[in-house]
Amino acid sequence: MKKVAILMGSDSDFSTVSEAIVQLKAFDIPYEAHVMSAHRTPYDVENFVKNAKDKDIAVFIAAAGKAAHLAGVVAAFTTLPVIGLPIKSSTMDGLDSLLSIVQMPAGVPVASVAIGGAQNAAILAAQILAISDDALAAKLVAFKSDMADSIRAKDQKLQSKIQEL
Amino acid sequence: MKKVAILMGSDSDFSTVSEAIVQLKAFDIPYEAHVMSAHRTPYDVENFVKNAKDKDIAVFIAAAGKAAHLAGVVAAFTTLPVIGLPIKSSTMDGLDSLLSIVQMPAGVPVASVAIGGAQNAAILAAQILAISDDALAAKLVAFKSDMADSIRAKDQKLQSKIQEL
Amino acid sequence: MKKVAILMGSDSDFSTVSEAIVQLKAFDIPYEAHVMSAHRTPYDVENFVKNAKDKDIAVFIAAAGKAAHLAGVVAAFTTLPVIGLPIKSSTMDGLDSLLSIVQMPAGVPVASVAIGGAQNAAILAAQILAISDDALAAKLVAFKSDMADSIRAKDQKLQSKIQEL
Amino acid sequence: MKKVAILMGSDSDFSTVSEAIVQLKAFDIPYEAHVMSAHRTPYDVENFVKNAKDKDIAVFIAAAGKAAHLAGVVAAFTTLPVIGLPIKSSTMDGLDSLLSIVQMPAGVPVASVAIGGAQNAAILAAQILAISDDALAAKLVAFKSDMADSIRAKDQKLQSKIQEL
Amino acid sequence: MKKVAILMGSDSDFSTVSEAIVQLKAFDIPYEAHVMSAHRTPYDVENFVKNAKDKDIAVFIAAAGKAAHLAGVVAAFTTLPVIGLPIKSSTMDGLDSLLSIVQMPAGVPVASVAIGGAQNAAILAAQILAISDDALAAKLVAFKSDMADSIRAKDQKLQSKIQEL
Amino acid sequence: MKKVAILMGSDSDFSTVSEAIVQLKAFDIPYEAHVMSAHRTPYDVENFVKNAKDKDIAVFIAAAGKAAHLAGVVAAFTTLPVIGLPIKSSTMDGLDSLLSIVQMPAGVPVASVAIGGAQNAAILAAQILAISDDALAAKLVAFKSDMADSIRAKDQKLQSKIQEL
Amino acid sequence: MKKVAILMGSDSDFSTVSEAIVQLKAFDIPYEAHVMSAHRTPYDVENFVKNAKDKDIAVFIAAAGKAAHLAGVVAAFTTLPVIGLPIKSSTMDGLDSLLSIVQMPAGVPVASVAIGGAQNAAILAAQILAISDDALAAKLVAFKSDMADSIRAKDQKLQSKIQEL
Amino acid sequence: MKKVAILMGSDSDFSTVSEAIVQLKAFDIPYEAHVMSAHRTPYDVENFVKNAKDKDIAVFIAAAGKAAHLAGVVAAFTTLPVIGLPIKSSTMDGLDSLLSIVQMPAGVPVASVAIGGAQNAAILAAQILAISDDALAAKLVAFKSDMADSIRAKDQKLQSKIQEL
Repeated sequence: MKKVAILMGSDSDFSTVSEAIVQLKAFDIPYEAHVMSAHRTPYDVENFVKNAKDKDIAVFIAAAGKAAHLAGVVAAFTTLPVIGLPIKSSTMDGLDSLLSIVQMPAGVPVASVAIGGAQNAAILAAQILAISDDALAAKLVAFKSDMADSIRAKDQKLQSKIQEL
Repeated sequence: MKKVAILMGSDSDFSTVSEAIVQLKAFDIPYEAHVMSAHRTPYDVENFVKNAKDKDIAVFIAAAGKAAHLAGVVAAFTTLPVIGLPIKSSTMDGLDSLLSIVQMPAGVPVASVAIGGAQNAAILAAQILAISDDALAAKLVAFKSDMADSIRAKDQKLQSKIQEL
Repeated sequence: MKKVAILMGSDSDFSTVSEAIVQLKAFDIPYEAHVMSAHRTPYDVENFVKNAKDKDIAVFIAAAGKAAHLAGVVAAFTTLPVIGLPIKSSTMDGLDSLLSIVQMPAGVPVASVAIGGAQNAAILAAQILAISDDALAAKLVAFKSDMADSIRAKDQKLQSKIQEL
Repeated sequence: MKKVAILMGSDSDFSTVSEAIVQLKAFDIPYEAHVMSAHRTPYDVENFVKNAKDKDIAVFIAAAGKAAHLAGVVAAFTTLPVIGLPIKSSTMDGLDSLLSIVQMPAGVPVASVAIGGAQNAAILAAQILAISDDALAAKLVAFKSDMADSIRAKDQKLQSKIQEL
Repeated sequence: MKKVAILMGSDSDFSTVSEAIVQLKAFDIPYEAHVMSAHRTPYDVENFVKNAKDKDIAVFIAAAGKAAHLAGVVAAFTTLPVIGLPIKSSTMDGLDSLLSIVQMPAGVPVASVAIGGAQNAAILAAQILAISDDALAAKLVAFKSDMADSIRAKDQKLQSKIQEL
Repeated sequence: MKKVAILMGSDSDFSTVSEAIVQLKAFDIPYEAHVMSAHRTPYDVENFVKNAKDKDIAVFIAAAGKAAHLAGVVAAFTTLPVIGLPIKSSTMDGLDSLLSIVQMPAGVPVASVAIGGAQNAAILAAQILAISDDALAAKLVAFKSDMADSIRAKDQKLQSKIQEL
Repeated sequence: MKKVAILMGSDSDFSTVSEAIVQLKAFDIPYEAHVMSAHRTPYDVENFVKNAKDKDIAVFIAAAGKAAHLAGVVAAFTTLPVIGLPIKSSTMDGLDSLLSIVQMPAGVPVASVAIGGAQNAAILAAQILAISDDALAAKLVAFKSDMADSIRAKDQKLQSKIQEL
Repeated sequence: MKKVAILMGSDSDFSTVSEAIVQLKAFDIPYEAHVMSAHRTPYDVENFVKNAKDKDIAVFIAAAGKAAHLAGVVAAFTTLPVIGLPIKSSTMDGLDSLLSIVQMPAGVPVASVAIGGAQNAAILAAQILAISDDALAAKLVAFKSDMADSIRAKDQKLQSKIQEL
């Protein structure tokens, strides 16, 4: 089965990125995760991305904050889909990360999810892999159905909370 | 071969969206394109999305401006990957479209490209389909190589422009 | 008497939304409140909104954060007035919610109140219902008068605080 | 039948506001429209608003740009619903108008529509009046249906445009 | 001697506004301070402002947050200078307050200071009064000189802190 | 009679600043206007400001765009009131100018008017001078009254425009 | 003499970047200019930067728009100073470019100039080189002096323009 | 050896600025650091900057928050390179500081680093000095190499953290 490669620009991103890993595990999707920086270890990123196909990597998730170049740099070296995950940093509330990731020039796309949207990055990776994997597609359908049930259960709980107001 | 479905919330989005169609054609990827509005024809969107798998649709591109809900509404009804394309409208320079598309809550991802990034939406769709389509993957490699050559040609032209300064 | 339907996209919105419920109760306006998500339970939202008139619902309040599509999706399925209540989420300080709610395209209005303005959502609903309900209109006049008195009382207290500076 | 009062802070707002008037006329809703400024003719605004009920005014639409105080000032003097229409001015792309209108403090709501959303302001006013006016409610249902048909017709036209790409 | 009138839209603004009062006291400038709301007690504001000259008020300081209309409403009723003090509220970091205060339309100026700049509002009021008050002008010169000395003292302390790094 | 000094950071600001000059002339207020730059002619600014009292200057208007430091630099060298006029430049829609002018640190106030609000800068200067000049105060009252009449005349014209819709 | 290398991500940046080249020529500073893209020709950028010292390059100027990664990517491969020049693109008014360039993470600095500030990028490069080049330092002093004279000449012209108002 | 002068507008900036000092010390670069304010001690700033060359100062780092004029004012008085360090203040998340520093007009550049990017300010100063100092250049190469090793070590640690998820 094909793998998802998760790269993060700093180990401080891990508290957010871990939600993506947990979700990939829940879907039984193989993955690799690495701290690699577009700015601090550019050769490592380049080498990792160039060898990705040999390792059966099919999708990248690249998480970074501030001037978040990692997703764009990965996309420069591959034609595989790259999901960008903007990390909120200590200033600018993540807007800098979002714009640095999503506003890619024509020719080299990055698929951005929400600021801090690590779980969605994993679900999106799963949706991409599921196009040619019916078992995974079925898991996604079940996930969506469970999610709806969870909302309905919360609505039930709400009815009693309202009585207390 | 699997298809890409392109939905746009308004026919005024077509001048932007047409670049996506041109790029899909260049990759020989089958597609359907429709004007459908999350707000003005919600049942049509729902029906179209629910029947997508029967029509061999594998990826959605949803383009909309302002309070751009189309991509999110499509994602609500499918587990296929949904690419959101924020359209710049007459105010707010596209920031409203971008945030409405990219800031999706946990569980229902949308893959946002840049404001007005129609060509990239098509390339991203191609990258997604190419995971299980080696011929398309080869076209993407060739596209990337041609793009690099085009930049190099522009660099050549620049050298003579500089002389004239 | 006609009812107000309050929908919230997530149970985490309840801490804000509860202020709207408290205010509706203070005006003796009947209401229903539900956790329902435009993205996670789209069919539930659609069914609820389509059956609203049968349940004597006359006004909607839809609260959501981030890419806040709930109010727009409700408005897509009804011609009743829809009040949008933007919820501040963990990033972007509520600007994403506000723009997602207020920037609706022509033809499908949403009436947005302030970010986190739950009490005002309820007062606005009351003002709408009061057009054809003189008793409620009188309560609104009394509410406004009490509010002015409360400000005057605070001004009195201020005079002693100033002495202490 | 009850009236809608449309106030605009400057005659330069008329090019936007006229779309609201055209829509009210299409619904056969009686209206008055005035240039009145919260800052330049504050007494006129106060007097107009205080006498509104005598003139069968049931809803206000207040349009203004920049530091757009008109809607809030109207709301200070009435318990009728006030719709705020932010006008885009020469700088800030209407963000100043939007925030000045929508961010009202607790107790005094304004119902904001989109920047420049004049038609929606009128439709919202109609939705509010239609709660106690079945004929108007029927017109809104017909309007919504026509709007959907118009989108479908645009989708038809799109199919031929696509062929030309 | 002429007075400064300080109005604040909510008693919660007092923790910020108190710095202005402390500064006015330090300059021995007579003042009045009131909680008065453009939206909740509009008649009180109007009456207070219209009677200002009789009470020897020469300058207004109007502090408010969110859709901060108080300064503009005061300016509508007077030709005395009005200083607007934007208060940071729970969302938008004070940008809404700033734009609501500073972006006044032509003809009715408000003099805005920084978000939360209460001390500066008082100093600005003093500078305005000092044009025709030589004793106050001398105090301002002394204040400026003391401020420079205080910075120089801090620079001295810095030199020892640096040694510890 | 006391003078207003108008400084602008660039001659390209003149098209905006000229509205301030026209308004000062209309009030018969003596003035001087200069192109002087905080960054390009810092000594000229310093000398001009230090000698201001000798020339009977009582109020400054400082207009600048982008990183608009002129008003703050003038304020550093004087205890006279300084009105900052943010000029919209080719990017950022004047937000950079506004923040550079209005967000002054404690101790050194600048009175900011709206982006491009040149006429208001002049009116504010007049309001400041009028505190000790009854004739000018009377002109301001007349100006305010004329402005109200002008709005009323525009309202009259609007009534016929509406008929044509 | 050491060289400045100017890289631009797209040939469309040349209309802005040319001002930097003109300024370098005016200072007789040797330079190379190239169209090279961090995303489209990443290997070319890497090779160029790694060989920079051999070519006597001492300073980089990297110009790019949107998700402007070029300056950061250059900085990843060199310890020479890198000046980032944010280019205004068709949306977001250059804010995306600015944040992508300036918000670099700790360890890998980029020196950002203003959006579109091409001339300043060249002057900054000159200032850096002038630290060890007294002749160039003298040119910078002369440039500054000429600039001041030019402002003074503009002030002279202003005096006659004012008479015409 | 040439010195770096670090100026900060307020002693409250020291907690951020100290990271720059620590980094300069690590590179054995001589420095001076001072609290000096463009607005509160303008003469001190002017005198310090004018005498800088006599003290072997070659580069400035100017740190300030809010309407952060210090870097621009330093640049007005020198032709040495000036690095601007935007400090995040209590509102606006540092955007005001950044724009006040980076958006300098043509002719007087400031080299802005990230909001709060004190360490990078020091590294950039080192890069500038290293152009004519081979020993320092070697330290920068070693620093870059150590930084890469540190990222790689963090990647190793990540591998065990992942196992625990």
